[in-house]
Amino acid sequence: MNVEGIWRRTIELAGDGRSVMVIDQARLPYAIEWMTLTSVAEVARAIRDMHIRGAPLIGATAAYGVAIAMRTGVALDAACAELAETRPTAINLRWALHQMQSALAGVYAGEREAVAYAAAAKIADDDVAACEAIGNYGKGIIDAIHKPRVDVLTHCNAGWLATVDWGTALAPVYKAHEAGIAVHVWVEETRPRNQGMLTAWELLQHGVPHTVIADNAGGHLMQRGQVDLCIVGTDRTTRNGDVCNKIGTYLKGLAAHDNGVPFYAAVPSSSIDWTVGAPAEIPIEERSGDEVRFVNGLIEGKPGRVEIVPRGSAVANPAFDVTPRRYMTGLITERGVATPATLAGMFGK
Amino acid sequence: MNVEGIWRRTIELAGDGRSVMVIDQARLPYAIEWMTLTSVAEVARAIRDMHIRGAPLIGATAAYGVAIAMRTGVALDAACAELAETRPTAINLRWALHQMQSALAGVYAGEREAVAYAAAAKIADDDVAACEAIGNYGKGIIDAIHKPRVDVLTHCNAGWLATVDWGTALAPVYKAHEAGIAVHVWVEETRPRNQGMLTAWELLQHGVPHTVIADNAGGHLMQRGQVDLCIVGTDRTTRNGDVCNKIGTYLKGLAAHDNGVPFYAAVPSSSIDWTVGAPAEIPIEERSGDEVRFVNGLIEGKPGRVEIVPRGSAVANPAFDVTPRRYMTGLITERGVATPATLAGMFGK
Repeated sequence: MNVEGIWRRTIELAGDGRSVMVIDQARLPYAIEWMTLTSVAEVARAIRDMHIRGAPLIGATAAYGVAIAMRTGVALDAACAELAETRPTAINLRWALHQMQSALAGVYAGEREAVAYAAAAKIADDDVAACEAIGNYGKGIIDAIHKPRVDVLTHCNAGWLATVDWGTALAPVYKAHEAGIAVHVWVEETRPRNQGMLTAWELLQHGVPHTVIADNAGGHLMQRGQVDLCIVGTDRTTRNGDVCNKIGTYLKGLAAHDNGVPFYAAVPSSSIDWTVGAPAEIPIEERSGDEVRFVNGLIEGKPGRVEIVPRGSAVANPAFDVTPRRYMTGLITERGVATPATLAGMFGK
Repeated sequence: MNVEGIWRRTIELAGDGRSVMVIDQARLPYAIEWMTLTSVAEVARAIRDMHIRGAPLIGATAAYGVAIAMRTGVALDAACAELAETRPTAINLRWALHQMQSALAGVYAGEREAVAYAAAAKIADDDVAACEAIGNYGKGIIDAIHKPRVDVLTHCNAGWLATVDWGTALAPVYKAHEAGIAVHVWVEETRPRNQGMLTAWELLQHGVPHTVIADNAGGHLMQRGQVDLCIVGTDRTTRNGDVCNKIGTYLKGLAAHDNGVPFYAAVPSSSIDWTVGAPAEIPIEERSGDEVRFVNGLIEGKPGRVEIVPRGSAVANPAFDVTPRRYMTGLITERGVATPATLAGMFGK
C-alpha cells in the first residue's frame, strides 16, 4: 500500500519488535495518524472502537494481540476471550485466534513468545499473499470485460486498509490498474461510517480514477448500464456462499441481479465460516446509534462532526447484512474464482 | 400539519394577501424559519435551491409563482418558462403550470390577477384534499395488517412538508396514528440531502413512534421480517405505474419484492405523467456534487456542515431513480388503491 508515497503495511512491528503500529482508521481520511498498540487491552480497544477495521486486518491484529499477551504475561485463554468479544460478525477474528491457539498448543512457556510472534507474522504474510492472489484472479475478471473503460462498483472499504496489504475487493482494481487496464471505481459512501471515504482516499493514493456516490445511487447506475461489475468484500461467508458484508451490500446484490450485472465478493478463505450454512446463523452486530446520529468530516479543514438526527428520534444501526448465495456471480478466493456451489469443493470441505 | 404546536399549511398567503410564506426546508430540521416569496424570481430560486421541495408542494408553489407574476406584471409565458426550468423530474411542476395556463386562457387582463390567485388556491386546496384521501385509503392498508404494531418503512420525505398538508406517503401513517392504530415508522435518512430528517422531525411533531436508519439498513430489516409494508412518495409516475422517486427508492422496491413485503407508492394524480409510458422517458435530475461532498447538521447546537469526501475525488449525484411497475404492489391515489394495470382506467385514461 501507498500512504502518501511511502510503501508500507497497515500493521507493522514497532521499533521495539514487540508492539505493533497500525494506521488509525477512525481518523482517516481526515487525519493520518499511526497508533502503537502495546497491550492486549489496547489491541482489543483498537478493534472494538474501529481504529482498525476490515475483517482480514482484524484477524491479523488480533493475532498480534495474542503475541503481545504472551510477551506481557496474559494467559492465552484470557487474551483470546477478551479479543474474541470485540466484534461479533467478522469471522477472521475467530479464525486468527484459533490459528494462534493451535500454534501455541503444547509449546513450552519459554518459547511461547517467539512462537506467537512468528505465528502472527505468518498470518499477516499469508493475508498479503491471499489478497495478492485474489487481485490476480479478479484482474482476470476485469480484463475479460473488454471495454474501453471498465466501471467497477464497490461498497464500504475492502482495500488495503481492510487487510494487511492489497485489499480484497480492491486488489483486482489495483492489479488491473497496474496492468494498464482502464478501470474506474464507483465508490459508495457507505453510511453510517462512510468507509467509502477510505476507499476514495486509497484510490487517490494510487491514482485510480473513481467517483464517490451516495449508497442510494448504485442501483440507478446499474439500471442505466453504467456499472460493468460489482466487487465487494466480506466479513463472513457461509460454506454455501452466502456473503455477509457491510450493511447495504445486499441491496446492491439485488440491483446487480435485476440488471444482469456480475456481482462478486472477494473472499480470502480466512473469511469463510465452514461451520455456518445459512444466512440466519450469522450474528449481525448492532453498533452504537451515534454512528447514525453523527457524521464525521472536516469543518473548515479540521476534523469534526455534525449531528444530523433530530433529538428525540430513535436510531437503529445494524452493521452488516447477508447477500444470499443466489445473487452471487462468483467468489474470488486465493485459490481461484468459485461459485457458491463450488466453494466448499475448492477448499476440500 | 403541526409545527411546534401550531396547525398550518406549508404554503400560505402572507399578510399582504399576495406574497406567499413557505417554511424554509433547506434549514429544517436544524432551524425553523419561514420565507416570504414576493417575485417570480424568488419563487423560482426557492424551488431550484430546494428551500421548498416535494413534488406536490413544488406544484402548488409554482402555481402561486404564476399568480405573483400576474400581480407583478411578468408575462405568463415568461413566468411559466422560468418556473418550469427549475427542476426537471417532478411532473407536478409542469402539471401545475399547465393548470394555471388553462385557468388564465382567454381571461381579460384586469381579471387575471384575481383568477390566478383563485386558481393557485384551488391547486393548494385540491392537494390537501387529495392527500387526505390518500391518507384514508392508505390507513385502510395499514389497518388490514392486523398486528400489535405495524412497521412502515419510508424513504425520503413525503410528509406534509412535501405537500400543502397531510403528505402523500405519510398521510396514511398520520391517519392510522389518529385512529389509534399502533404504527411505527422506519425512517431512512435519504442521503445525500437527508430528507429523512424532515420525516423524523415531522413525526416528532405528531408523536408518531419512529426510528431513523441508514439507507443501507432497509433491506436487512426486510430480510429479518421487521418491515410490514413500505410506502414511498413519487415525483413522477408513468401511466403504466413505474414510480420515479428519490434516489434509492428502487433498491427498497427490490428488497420488498425479494422478501414479500408490500410496496406502495402514494400517488396523487397530479404526480402522474400520462404522456410517459416507460421509465427511460423520465429525465433524472443530476444535482450538485456538493450535496454528496457536504453533510448538513448541527455543530455544537448551531447549523453547520462537514466536508466528507476527500478533495481530489470526483462525485456524482443523480437525484431520482425509477422503481419499475413490476415491483409495485399498489399505487395509493385520491380515488383509491390502484395496481399498475388498473391505474389508467381509474382515471379514465
